[in-house]
Amino acid sequence: MAQITSRRSGGRRERMAARTARQSIAAPYTMRQIGPVSLINEESVAIIERNADRILDKIGMDFRGDPETLELFRKHGARVDGERVRFDPGWCRDKIKTAPPVFTQNARNRARSIQIGGDAQVFAPSFGSPFVHDMENGRRYATLEDFKNITKLHHQLGAVNHSGGVVVEPVDIPVPLRHLHMAHTHLTMNDKPFMGAVTAPERARDTIEMCKIAMGEDFVKNNCVLYSVVNTNAPLVMDETMLWALKEYARAGQCTVVSPFVLGGAMSPVSIAATLAQVLAEVMASVALIQLIRPGAPAVFGTFFSPISLKSGAPTFGTPEGTQFQMCAKTLADRLGLPFHSVGSLTSSKIPDAQAGYESQAQLMGATMAGVNFIIHATGCLEGLLTTGYEKIVMDADRCAAMQRFTQGIDFSEAAQAMDAFFEIGPGGHFLGAQHTHDNFETAFWMGNMSHDGTFEQWTAEGGLWQHQRATDRVKQLLDGYEPPEMDLAIREALDEFIIRRSREIEGEKT
Amino acid sequence: MAQITSRRSGGRRERMAARTARQSIAAPYTMRQIGPVSLINEESVAIIERNADRILDKIGMDFRGDPETLELFRKHGARVDGERVRFDPGWCRDKIKTAPPVFTQNARNRARSIQIGGDAQVFAPSFGSPFVHDMENGRRYATLEDFKNITKLHHQLGAVNHSGGVVVEPVDIPVPLRHLHMAHTHLTMNDKPFMGAVTAPERARDTIEMCKIAMGEDFVKNNCVLYSVVNTNAPLVMDETMLWALKEYARAGQCTVVSPFVLGGAMSPVSIAATLAQVLAEVMASVALIQLIRPGAPAVFGTFFSPISLKSGAPTFGTPEGTQFQMCAKTLADRLGLPFHSVGSLTSSKIPDAQAGYESQAQLMGATMAGVNFIIHATGCLEGLLTTGYEKIVMDADRCAAMQRFTQGIDFSEAAQAMDAFFEIGPGGHFLGAQHTHDNFETAFWMGNMSHDGTFEQWTAEGGLWQHQRATDRVKQLLDGYEPPEMDLAIREALDEFIIRRSREIEGEKT
Repeated sequence: MAQITSRRSGGRRERMAARTARQSIAAPYTMRQIGPVSLINEESVAIIERNADRILDKIGMDFRGDPETLELFRKHGARVDGERVRFDPGWCRDKIKTAPPVFTQNARNRARSIQIGGDAQVFAPSFGSPFVHDMENGRRYATLEDFKNITKLHHQLGAVNHSGGVVVEPVDIPVPLRHLHMAHTHLTMNDKPFMGAVTAPERARDTIEMCKIAMGEDFVKNNCVLYSVVNTNAPLVMDETMLWALKEYARAGQCTVVSPFVLGGAMSPVSIAATLAQVLAEVMASVALIQLIRPGAPAVFGTFFSPISLKSGAPTFGTPEGTQFQMCAKTLADRLGLPFHSVGSLTSSKIPDAQAGYESQAQLMGATMAGVNFIIHATGCLEGLLTTGYEKIVMDADRCAAMQRFTQGIDFSEAAQAMDAFFEIGPGGHFLGAQHTHDNFETAFWMGNMSHDGTFEQWTAEGGLWQHQRATDRVKQLLDGYEPPEMDLAIREALDEFIIRRSREIEGEKT
Repeated sequence: MAQITSRRSGGRRERMAARTARQSIAAPYTMRQIGPVSLINEESVAIIERNADRILDKIGMDFRGDPETLELFRKHGARVDGERVRFDPGWCRDKIKTAPPVFTQNARNRARSIQIGGDAQVFAPSFGSPFVHDMENGRRYATLEDFKNITKLHHQLGAVNHSGGVVVEPVDIPVPLRHLHMAHTHLTMNDKPFMGAVTAPERARDTIEMCKIAMGEDFVKNNCVLYSVVNTNAPLVMDETMLWALKEYARAGQCTVVSPFVLGGAMSPVSIAATLAQVLAEVMASVALIQLIRPGAPAVFGTFFSPISLKSGAPTFGTPEGTQFQMCAKTLADRLGLPFHSVGSLTSSKIPDAQAGYESQAQLMGATMAGVNFIIHATGCLEGLLTTGYEKIVMDADRCAAMQRFTQGIDFSEAAQAMDAFFEIGPGGHFLGAQHTHDNFETAFWMGNMSHDGTFEQWTAEGGLWQHQRATDRVKQLLDGYEPPEMDLAIREALDEFIIRRSREIEGEKT
């Protein structure tokens, strides 16, 4: 029998204090008190690692469009042939050793800074949807206003520890300017940490510059303030756009997540065992590159795995294989001493229906139990990330809070054992009036705010609303009640000026 | 790090064969290939066991309305004071040793018989709702026709291993006759195993008699054919109705599940640690009684735990504590050498909305990962079991199938590693045409039938249906396509005659 047991001692008082803190929206992230669930034994780990080594040695990986990278690899002993790079077994693992297993991503508001790696678990918004959906207006292309609204929501949702990156694509803004408005929104409308642009090297540089304005140049030079996701182009390719972003962030000492995006059966063989080896190979080679560029730069082992449907060829979510894959990949990341980043509440449903609920909960609970350090797409996903749902954001956030409580483990202290209560009440009584109940009922059990637990009669009297309808109301309440985080006026003006100046420059470059 | 690893070796061929069998509706139950997740360490187990012993020793449990039971306890050395029975530490544990850790519940169709205990995992329908709900007719009192329809659905749903018990209350049938019609429906309209009535001793006897007609008198005398759930009246009471049912089934060598029904904070102290001790105490005393009545009679450790809402006093579902409790209680059941029975897809939602999806998936995934041997309420629950939803049954069943696949673990065989495919495809290619994909795509990944995975455009063209709307169609298809299982005509006539005769007798008794 596998046991996942409490990791820490520490008195009940500390735990209660921590719990209370966690329930306020100030808690910046969750420290797990229970271990992760792994599904892979040592023998199978050895098989996967050997296969990844063999793939890197005999097949290799393509790093495209950047002679400098190829030269860097060659200089350090990798075997470069055109854009194909091959690695002796153990070479990548050796280079990765300089990556920190645990680090801090600093928020503009330092009280919101997060730990990445170790027992820390961070829940972050969905990324990259071109569409938004809400029940009143349906599905449509997202705009900067949607981007801002979603950032306002995440600023207020205590279970969400991060402001995210491209929370939706603001398609009303020209592509070359989007990164400026996105970083400006994250920095001014939320004070949680956020993600950097990866679509071009100058956009990465602009994002870093804006952080310097907001957080101080020296601070940004010496600390991680951006967390940026670079996808390999599975199988075994990193294209030039991603490569350039990776280089910018690595040089600046900012965090890069290497996250192979894999539709199993299309971009990897149609099995978990094979996909694990491929993903491990891609991550090892890419993180090794980060460490060649700047030894000690924070790097994260990421995965995005979705099995494709046999019927439609479409990605599927909430599947057993999605969770199995995460649980194994986490073990592989631990073996490399890297934090692990993977997906949360994904669904292929187009609307916030029961399918969305089942699939999102399955993915999120799997990610939580796997011990994923940074759970991306924890809120808002619809349609396999093509759409972000307003209602879905607040519905998912409630389930994030439940998962965070789950990882706090169980209180077995003398007070929690409540033996006095049994002697007080005895057989056939009830505990509602017991002293122990009186002392503990407020914090004893997790309570969400998106479930209707009352009677059918109460529910009917309140309008018989489905969860997505209550969520519409909650979204409006949060947007109406939004207050921006404090920001020094000079900083705000400097940020405004920066995006005006850079917009002009970029527009000028174009013409 | 906790590891849950493959328990069995065995070649890939066997696993593939087993997987194929599982996907057809004939697979009678699932054998887990991965271990359960536990959240309680040895030190905490010792605390809970010591507290349960102390409760039974110093406070005791009430067994109401049955002098014979009290005399049986007294004769074997328990301390009886009125209806209160106290037990020396270790006494119950000693008596429980004769209960089998693993046994078979036989179905009328032996190919549907199930193993209870060990690595076996059985998924069973919801139990006890007075109401039914479907999208066309809304919520209403259930009738015998609903009972029959639901039994028809479960006969056809491959992921559901059991026909259940009171799948809904057929309120159009007088209470004293309901058990006859329920057993008749289970025996004639489904050939999976089912549950016995517990509302009166003569009803338990009638159910056993009907099994003898259907399965042979000698067979029923010597084998378990009924699985019946007896709830303690927490805290620390067993009332006379439940006690009499327990006695009937134990005497007949049929299985009794002792399942304390606990709303945490009302019927137990407001903590998991205390509730675990209380439930353990109740189960130990009750299973000891079963073993005094008939040593070796099958008995199961059951739990139904729901934290109450601080706001409304109502039970809540899909909470972190619900899963934490199950994971701990499973460990306690293992320590007693008893199979473990607990709850699946519970929700307090009144309709098949996203709340129902989130909560049901959380409960079901928790139960699956906890290693619950018999997952009751796996399909159909709405409104905290006050209502069974037609659509919810087929929606939940799809998630049961996903969970069953999850417990089969991961194939790390040489074929699954697919190293040839990497050499065949290489960097930048795709695997859709690879030989490995061709050979494996049909069985490689789990595919549900209630999720829409296609594009937004396809979904819109198909009517833009929400999951519960697709479920309405699926329910109709299943009911339209239903064919009853085969039954010998003489048996069918004897069952018909039995319920006519017994109905007359019972009606006569009344007047």
